[in-house]
Amino acid sequence: MPRVVESALDAGIAARLKRTPDGLVCAVVQQRGTGEVLMVAWMDDEALHRTLTTGRATYWSRSREEYWVKGATSGNVQHVHEVRLDCDGDALLVVVDQTGAACHTGTRTCFDTDVLLAAG
Amino acid sequence: MPRVVESALDAGIAARLKRTPDGLVCAVVQQRGTGEVLMVAWMDDEALHRTLTTGRATYWSRSREEYWVKGATSGNVQHVHEVRLDCDGDALLVVVDQTGAACHTGTRTCFDTDVLLAAG
Repeated sequence: MPRVVESALDAGIAARLKRTPDGLVCAVVQQRGTGEVLMVAWMDDEALHRTLTTGRATYWSRSREEYWVKGATSGNVQHVHEVRLDCDGDALLVVVDQTGAACHTGTRTCFDTDVLLAAG
Repeated sequence: MPRVVESALDAGIAARLKRTPDGLVCAVVQQRGTGEVLMVAWMDDEALHRTLTTGRATYWSRSREEYWVKGATSGNVQHVHEVRLDCDGDALLVVVDQTGAACHTGTRTCFDTDVLLAAG
């Protein structure tokens, strides 16, 4: 469980987060410049702390139940340029420079394949 | 609870969704053309069905526990141009034309105010 980890996240930021029952906040990851939405992932306090202090996007993997530095195994790292919190504190916008594919399937973004509606 | 509603959502789409225990999927809302990330909201099957069939972005409000057609009271409607599902079926990208402010605080996006990191 993510919340057993003590985090050094800034107390002022931590106080503004509204977390799921699992202690997580949704992170929308966007390519700097082009504005492409690359993927959606999840952060707990410690993942956000590591992201803010290392400049490498770091998430909480709900399936593996571990921290996950994006690109640590694939090389497709995300250099973080901006992090913003939304008005109700339950979503982050992480603006990155993505190396290579953001999606584990090999496509540039996780939204490239399954189009439910294309009204033009 | 959202999932008590029977939904006419296309069965093929419904089969690809991976929902939270509350029956919801995260929806990232992006302005067509500029790529601005406007907000993050939540949809259950019926909200997605209504969004796909009416062309008006419709969400499930977790706080009010009701469907919510964006702009129904404020006039700040979202005309839907594209809807995409991500590779693992738990996030939607909704590309819209946003009338006026997307955020209930009056700012253009829900991410305009609280900058946690700005590395340039």
